[in-house]
Amino acid sequence: MLFSDLAALRGAIASLPAGVEGAAAAVATRQARLTKPPGSLGRLEALAAWLARWQGRAQPRLEHVQVLVFAGNHGVTAQGVSPYPPAVTAQMVENFSAGGAAINQLCAVAGAALQVVPLRLETPTADFTAGPAMDEREFLQAVNQGAAALPARLDLLCLGEMGIGNTTAAAAMAAALFGGGGADWAGRGTGVDDAGLARKVSVIDAGLARHPAARADPLEAARCLGGRELAAILGATLAARLRGVPVLLDGFAACTAAAPLAVLAPGGLDHAEVAHRSAEAGHGRLLAALEKVALLDLGMRLGEASGAALAVPLLRGALACHQGMATFAEAGVAEAP
Amino acid sequence: MLFSDLAALRGAIASLPAGVEGAAAAVATRQARLTKPPGSLGRLEALAAWLARWQGRAQPRLEHVQVLVFAGNHGVTAQGVSPYPPAVTAQMVENFSAGGAAINQLCAVAGAALQVVPLRLETPTADFTAGPAMDEREFLQAVNQGAAALPARLDLLCLGEMGIGNTTAAAAMAAALFGGGGADWAGRGTGVDDAGLARKVSVIDAGLARHPAARADPLEAARCLGGRELAAILGATLAARLRGVPVLLDGFAACTAAAPLAVLAPGGLDHAEVAHRSAEAGHGRLLAALEKVALLDLGMRLGEASGAALAVPLLRGALACHQGMATFAEAGVAEAP
Repeated sequence: MLFSDLAALRGAIASLPAGVEGAAAAVATRQARLTKPPGSLGRLEALAAWLARWQGRAQPRLEHVQVLVFAGNHGVTAQGVSPYPPAVTAQMVENFSAGGAAINQLCAVAGAALQVVPLRLETPTADFTAGPAMDEREFLQAVNQGAAALPARLDLLCLGEMGIGNTTAAAAMAAALFGGGGADWAGRGTGVDDAGLARKVSVIDAGLARHPAARADPLEAARCLGGRELAAILGATLAARLRGVPVLLDGFAACTAAAPLAVLAPGGLDHAEVAHRSAEAGHGRLLAALEKVALLDLGMRLGEASGAALAVPLLRGALACHQGMATFAEAGVAEAP
Repeated sequence: MLFSDLAALRGAIASLPAGVEGAAAAVATRQARLTKPPGSLGRLEALAAWLARWQGRAQPRLEHVQVLVFAGNHGVTAQGVSPYPPAVTAQMVENFSAGGAAINQLCAVAGAALQVVPLRLETPTADFTAGPAMDEREFLQAVNQGAAALPARLDLLCLGEMGIGNTTAAAAMAAALFGGGGADWAGRGTGVDDAGLARKVSVIDAGLARHPAARADPLEAARCLGGRELAAILGATLAARLRGVPVLLDGFAACTAAAPLAVLAPGGLDHAEVAHRSAEAGHGRLLAALEKVALLDLGMRLGEASGAALAVPLLRGALACHQGMATFAEAGVAEAP
């Protein structure tokens, strides 16, 4: 286990490695010489520098792009917070294995490898309105499984989730981390009606009232209100930082899962970009709290790392321009004075 | 010549073919059966239906994706509206041929073919503050060159431009088409300073005053205030509509070039999506006038069809999901009631 106890986990978060500014500066220097008006590639230029900073190389690579989808089940589904039965989590894991889900198709387009990591689907977390979703051992185990899921060769990590009920868990976590209550963070998830949304709001508020320590401690929020797949995303995001691997986070649940890093450490999510602004209600508020601007905004709300995979070609484009373009001098193009 | 005179061009625009609604409806029917909550792929679902509608096939394809970059020179550069000398247009065409520009790299990522079409670069259009940029023959010739540039096998057309001075021409055209003056539409282009921006504004206002007919007739706006590369984009966009080919338009200049179709015919640009919301000042206003929402918003302002090429993988993702995903029945996944 990478993190043998909560103290080890807290210690790692308290001493996150910084990015390699020299690598990012080298990218910026080269960008200024390429055959385009200065700054005209907009965010693509910043993305190339970001890849360099967090890979620690002036010539970043995107040869090994891994999508990890963590799956978990949630006891809080007993409260009627999703129109889908919890059995769908395992059914969708089968669908991922058979190649039939959206993320399978999007990984093929992105040139990314896909691994799905089901986390004890047969044993849902506890209903957080009755007690903590996980005890410390269960929570640490999920965090470590996330950290251990990173492959040996890795240039970019895309993180997503599957878990019926997990927008309720994520909304409760987000409220604990950033303030507010169920009405501020609950959304329609896979598509609850008005009555279902009202249930989600009151279930979240009940969870927040049941676990006051969650508002004071982001790891308690993750343990008491979150879920195994969310804890695994936290562990994977942290492991990526320690390994020098930039991260693309998918939508609302994935961003919430990783958010304790930002709350506990200044710049704790600087190695992560948010791929897509989900249509799920709480994501806009969460992005503002994290001071992140998503790369895409296409009204998606599927999870499964679908938004993250869809954004991979944008990074490939940014890197291809940085690596392949001629300089003004090489091309014999006149520069502006 | 596809359009032998202006009357033929006007006639084609007045009788644009409609999309094939049956093909779009077939896509929507299939989308509802795929293993995802209804609507959860957001705009990707609409894009798959859009490809079907304008290709006229229930199973659209993206095998033959062509990027066309039209290049032209502008007499109005004599007024000091760009920090770059007009010679850069031809130098950049050389750079495209040598594979050193941003669009070369982005086409490789997109899996798109690139063709650059220089349009009489040695003979700039006339300075529109002194007279019409083109006479009718020159204008028609450029429109027809654009229309003729479409390859025989074509599933998606991406359109962009290169032309020192053409954000000034495009801003003047946009003002003529949608109202307002230079201050409403001029931006910094490749990067003019405050004095240069003030010059652009007054040059645009002088052009608008010189050609009052441009405000009444979109084709006169294109002829008197536009440029050859802009006229070619108009011709290519029109030819794509006639051929059943959907179009991705790049930024401010490309959208302005195609805009006469929308002004002259209801739904005249329904077969076109805007790929990227340019950082060029007038593009937001133009998108509002065209009632379009760009697929990307990454602060780019390069032209060269760079935004269009960058958006191609989003369409590939939309299509891959539509074609490759399993239905609920195929995957044995429970549906919501």
